[in-house]
Amino acid sequence: MRKDGRKNNELRDVHIDKNFIIHPEGSVLITVGQTKVICNASIEDRVPPFMRGEGKGWITAEYSMLPRATEQRTIREASKGKITGRTMEIQRLIGRALRAVVNLNDLGERTIWIDCDVIQADGGTRTASITGAFVAMTLALGKLMNDGKIKKMPITDFLAAISVGVDEEQGEILDLNYQEDSKAEVDMNVIMTAQGELVEVQGTGEESTFTRAQLNSMLDLAEQGIKSLVEIQKEALGDLALLVEKNANKQGE
Amino acid sequence: MRKDGRKNNELRDVHIDKNFIIHPEGSVLITVGQTKVICNASIEDRVPPFMRGEGKGWITAEYSMLPRATEQRTIREASKGKITGRTMEIQRLIGRALRAVVNLNDLGERTIWIDCDVIQADGGTRTASITGAFVAMTLALGKLMNDGKIKKMPITDFLAAISVGVDEEQGEILDLNYQEDSKAEVDMNVIMTAQGELVEVQGTGEESTFTRAQLNSMLDLAEQGIKSLVEIQKEALGDLALLVEKNANKQGE
Amino acid sequence: MRKDGRKNNELRDVHIDKNFIIHPEGSVLITVGQTKVICNASIEDRVPPFMRGEGKGWITAEYSMLPRATEQRTIREASKGKITGRTMEIQRLIGRALRAVVNLNDLGERTIWIDCDVIQADGGTRTASITGAFVAMTLALGKLMNDGKIKKMPITDFLAAISVGVDEEQGEILDLNYQEDSKAEVDMNVIMTAQGELVEVQGTGEESTFTRAQLNSMLDLAEQGIKSLVEIQKEALGDLALLVEKNANKQGE
Amino acid sequence: MRKDGRKNNELRDVHIDKNFIIHPEGSVLITVGQTKVICNASIEDRVPPFMRGEGKGWITAEYSMLPRATEQRTIREASKGKITGRTMEIQRLIGRALRAVVNLNDLGERTIWIDCDVIQADGGTRTASITGAFVAMTLALGKLMNDGKIKKMPITDFLAAISVGVDEEQGEILDLNYQEDSKAEVDMNVIMTAQGELVEVQGTGEESTFTRAQLNSMLDLAEQGIKSLVEIQKEALGDLALLVEKNANKQGE
Amino acid sequence: MRKDGRKNNELRDVHIDKNFIIHPEGSVLITVGQTKVICNASIEDRVPPFMRGEGKGWITAEYSMLPRATEQRTIREASKGKITGRTMEIQRLIGRALRAVVNLNDLGERTIWIDCDVIQADGGTRTASITGAFVAMTLALGKLMNDGKIKKMPITDFLAAISVGVDEEQGEILDLNYQEDSKAEVDMNVIMTAQGELVEVQGTGEESTFTRAQLNSMLDLAEQGIKSLVEIQKEALGDLALLVEKNANKQGE
Amino acid sequence: MRKDGRKNNELRDVHIDKNFIIHPEGSVLITVGQTKVICNASIEDRVPPFMRGEGKGWITAEYSMLPRATEQRTIREASKGKITGRTMEIQRLIGRALRAVVNLNDLGERTIWIDCDVIQADGGTRTASITGAFVAMTLALGKLMNDGKIKKMPITDFLAAISVGVDEEQGEILDLNYQEDSKAEVDMNVIMTAQGELVEVQGTGEESTFTRAQLNSMLDLAEQGIKSLVEIQKEALGDLALLVEKNANKQGE
Repeated sequence: MRKDGRKNNELRDVHIDKNFIIHPEGSVLITVGQTKVICNASIEDRVPPFMRGEGKGWITAEYSMLPRATEQRTIREASKGKITGRTMEIQRLIGRALRAVVNLNDLGERTIWIDCDVIQADGGTRTASITGAFVAMTLALGKLMNDGKIKKMPITDFLAAISVGVDEEQGEILDLNYQEDSKAEVDMNVIMTAQGELVEVQGTGEESTFTRAQLNSMLDLAEQGIKSLVEIQKEALGDLALLVEKNANKQGE
Repeated sequence: MRKDGRKNNELRDVHIDKNFIIHPEGSVLITVGQTKVICNASIEDRVPPFMRGEGKGWITAEYSMLPRATEQRTIREASKGKITGRTMEIQRLIGRALRAVVNLNDLGERTIWIDCDVIQADGGTRTASITGAFVAMTLALGKLMNDGKIKKMPITDFLAAISVGVDEEQGEILDLNYQEDSKAEVDMNVIMTAQGELVEVQGTGEESTFTRAQLNSMLDLAEQGIKSLVEIQKEALGDLALLVEKNANKQGE
Repeated sequence: MRKDGRKNNELRDVHIDKNFIIHPEGSVLITVGQTKVICNASIEDRVPPFMRGEGKGWITAEYSMLPRATEQRTIREASKGKITGRTMEIQRLIGRALRAVVNLNDLGERTIWIDCDVIQADGGTRTASITGAFVAMTLALGKLMNDGKIKKMPITDFLAAISVGVDEEQGEILDLNYQEDSKAEVDMNVIMTAQGELVEVQGTGEESTFTRAQLNSMLDLAEQGIKSLVEIQKEALGDLALLVEKNANKQGE
Repeated sequence: MRKDGRKNNELRDVHIDKNFIIHPEGSVLITVGQTKVICNASIEDRVPPFMRGEGKGWITAEYSMLPRATEQRTIREASKGKITGRTMEIQRLIGRALRAVVNLNDLGERTIWIDCDVIQADGGTRTASITGAFVAMTLALGKLMNDGKIKKMPITDFLAAISVGVDEEQGEILDLNYQEDSKAEVDMNVIMTAQGELVEVQGTGEESTFTRAQLNSMLDLAEQGIKSLVEIQKEALGDLALLVEKNANKQGE
Repeated sequence: MRKDGRKNNELRDVHIDKNFIIHPEGSVLITVGQTKVICNASIEDRVPPFMRGEGKGWITAEYSMLPRATEQRTIREASKGKITGRTMEIQRLIGRALRAVVNLNDLGERTIWIDCDVIQADGGTRTASITGAFVAMTLALGKLMNDGKIKKMPITDFLAAISVGVDEEQGEILDLNYQEDSKAEVDMNVIMTAQGELVEVQGTGEESTFTRAQLNSMLDLAEQGIKSLVEIQKEALGDLALLVEKNANKQGE
Repeated sequence: MRKDGRKNNELRDVHIDKNFIIHPEGSVLITVGQTKVICNASIEDRVPPFMRGEGKGWITAEYSMLPRATEQRTIREASKGKITGRTMEIQRLIGRALRAVVNLNDLGERTIWIDCDVIQADGGTRTASITGAFVAMTLALGKLMNDGKIKKMPITDFLAAISVGVDEEQGEILDLNYQEDSKAEVDMNVIMTAQGELVEVQGTGEESTFTRAQLNSMLDLAEQGIKSLVEIQKEALGDLALLVEKNANKQGE
């Protein structure tokens, strides 16, 4: 049993509050244990200069933490005047992951801006951001369909993300909180579709190494966790989930 | 009657949710109509270099808006690499206002960091930030007292802020929402204590001017609005409010 | 009597040297006691992108201090690579104030750039900047009329600014020098037209508060000071003053 | 057969020129096909502030490309005034990877600065950087031992990195050049020790996904490639290689 | 005869107004034709970190132009957030030149900050800055002697600077104004002591070249111009000039 | 005899490796003693905005040093987020020098980007950069002619650069290495054409001064050194050298 009473393959409590903020086209608050992220999706009716005229869309993400999302106050990146390497890595990851499940041609020459703002952090903020951002993006695309601006849902499958790791005592564990993450020997983030296809695997030995057997055990845990997350996404999305499911099934054929 | 049905001297609905985020020493979510601001207060056990060795404390504030707090997405200041003049003005204002009601000697060599993050904006974000930040700061100082780090509450009086303005058709109005603010001829922010003392008055003609009579009518409205806001602060603070009240009464003698 | 022998309602010596620098369309050196500011007005034949095509003009201001304008050398903002919050506040204030007395439609699609460079500082630099910038702007607009580029003077009234404050011993005082400003309990900047209309009121308790009675006394002092400043502006402007006066009288009718 | 005549499991030609530059404590030029990277290791006799007094060392890396390392000239990061997200990701990756095979306690309070400067790029610059940087670092540590500053070689095992990917037509391939990388559906970087332990796995579907079977095939290819790279490292290092081997064998027991 | 009526070897009118600004330890306004530069010298009682403990002083310079010093308004470097290459070159040049005539050991562990702010520009701003800065620095060092902080004048000789050039029609000319500078084929700045020793020679063909004969003619003109400038410096400095002269004579022996 | 055995008028060994890097239109590695600089020339088919429509070309240069080009590691300018004054001076110098020997009209609306990256430094990096960049630029222009994009070679003469100086013991010396440069009293860079025309002369007393006689001796040395450098350039350029020679001869007539 883990410090917080969970089994090795157990997720923390996950909630997705839909339409959290009124202005964005899609908005959710995702809660994973004590981690809370506001995920907003905004639609802009043009693409970046390097893509103009191709008839394709684009998805880009920004990520930030409130200074007191963390136990110790962290300095605002706006005050420092630059974005840290960690933030850049995460926002590139979020954008890349979401683009893997969107047919950018069906989106048309539009940009989806994803904003993930962590208001409370307890480990797993980047994976919670991706899981929440998927729902916010789907809501925004649902709105685009409602407004008659696109004819079909451009999303090809559900997408969720989770962290796994190796703990010295517990072995392979799912969904690490901050305390677990700090002492893990191996830390891995897995992004997968509902069909079990991998989108991104990032495993890192923290001043340590790991075997292929450990890699496989971690992937097993992640697959299971992502299945559960997709169920929670479907529930939050209601009828919109059906449109995504239809696309995913076609693909799976 | 105004567009949203309010009378000229009527505030929007105001709520203060206490302990909104777990990590900060003091944390509230303040809601003023559709405007929502997370106000966090952090205690740091040292002061900036220019104040060291004087035995006095310091209070400083930072303010930011989520990109989709607004109807149109605004670019993150962290991405631009610099803070706008508007943000600087607001964070200087918040810090200055709070320092006016804190006995910095009683605080000791500590810094209170105030973070006001607007997650949804509909006018009056700077005044809502001040009203909410006052409560977050009081909670943090209550915690310092509980932890035995300071002996007496350093806050000398309640402090709240509200906007007033002159509308071409309505005349002087209290607590402008975004739509009203956009078309107001005069825009004024007033910061006051519970005793009715002024801490800051900033009145601006927007490509326009105003008379001293109008200034006085606006101040009357503001005084009334601030009285109501202080009542809501007291309710949110519960027993802690009594400590502040005691100090204020002593001062008033 | 004050430290420098003035009465509470007495301005320092004020001089406005016209055509101080040869290149700008309008240029003055304003001297208020020991405070000296070069105010230049430049005309650019286009407006910022967000205003194009509206047929209206724009006025924007920049403010800076030479490193040794102050008793201690201050670091150049260019060397630091960013502008301080104080500078941003002041340049926004100057631009906003001047726009309040200019009919931007009569200006046409032109930008007036105001540059206020403090070469020697002894308190009141922002109010001296506004009072001097008004004259520089009027000179530049006079040149535009002479050149036949605009048909009528777009300025609707004279505009001047002055500081007032509350001193612990002296009570309310007019036109604070640096020493007085450093120890004032309340500091207020007032910007007014010749007709006595308010354009901006910014009153701040410096770790202190003030009453509405004090506010009113300070406004009385300011009104009187601004009347004197306008007389000095008129003298500097000579015949150009008559054009502004004519507009102001029309407005006052 | 691939475009350049290689088999799917075939590396490009790899050369490591030792002591390429005279000033650094360790310096190599690594050539992988047309990709050329100068890898320098510098020893500094102190650690960053956050680590002082712990008796441990630190390893940090910087990565850059000459503007014409690429077919189209890229703008210098120094001219832009900021480092791109891609560069940050790579330099964090290099530092993290090397730290995994160094006993930081044996290093003592010293920092090893790794500088990887790509002078010619044709895909795989980050993995070539790691493979070359390992050799540069070992040379620098060999010098520290020669100088009597450390008693034992702090490196625990050989470390090399290689890219693998999935090509639409070729299937899984090893060591992608730029052209292959541009059209690959999946791109994965693998960092491994000579003992076959994983240090980092980063697999990414490029607007695409991949199965666990594909992941396994790619890992098989990578393992084989890294074995060959380690042989080339050993040859370059000569006698120094024996010291690392001894440590690795002890660990493997 | 030149456009402005001068002979080829004729300086423009030069004036040096002493004690122009009240706060700096040394302050002059230098006027060379239409070029006007405020030169201030500030004494700081410490040296930069890299020089501490050596018992030697340091001299550093900053240079800037008011936006409307020029015929077209130039953007402030503070607004751009960075200093141009031209400004950097000039401020490095001023500091280096002054250091050549100061015995830094006699100065003690102090920094002299030179600020040259061009308020009106008509060519030759960098040479006017050096000529004026020399006087401001001497005044500041005179004050240090008066205050008993240093025992002897650390300046070893007078120093002045002037521009020379080659004009297509006029041949070699002295002290170019802006118009002449814009069309000159060769532009050279010469910095010399009263003893005729060279401190800096910077000659540049502007998309053109020049012969050694032309170089020599230009140096002849410069030598003559600098002699005249030193006389004007001496007059401005009064008795202080004698102390410098004494040092220069000793050196010349 | 100098420390490294050279005579006062003796260059170090100079080598120019042609086509060092594959991607640029022109590329050389120049070696001057222990100083090594990669010089790349890139052709871009447009000019900066301020030159468009004039039918003329432009040449611009960038310069950088690898962190361990020097004996002590220097911080990357990209990491600091800004370019030092020294770098700016050097890149302005390189661009200006090359433009002096190119007929920009014959180049057409194209930009030549020169990148000089010092990989190993031992004094004279800026002069080696210019001498090498001239060859890289000529190679790139040769390619433009081969591709039929320009009809005639726009280069009007050979151009090379060398440092000279005054050593306390040796007197005037040619081509200073780092050690000599550090202790030189006078440091001068000379840029000349094969015809012996001066393009740039920058002589600086390092906390010291120099006489016109010394200036002349240094120029004599430089002239001799540059003759030798031009021979090495001609050898590296092979047949392309003839095209430049033809232009130079025409000019010389």
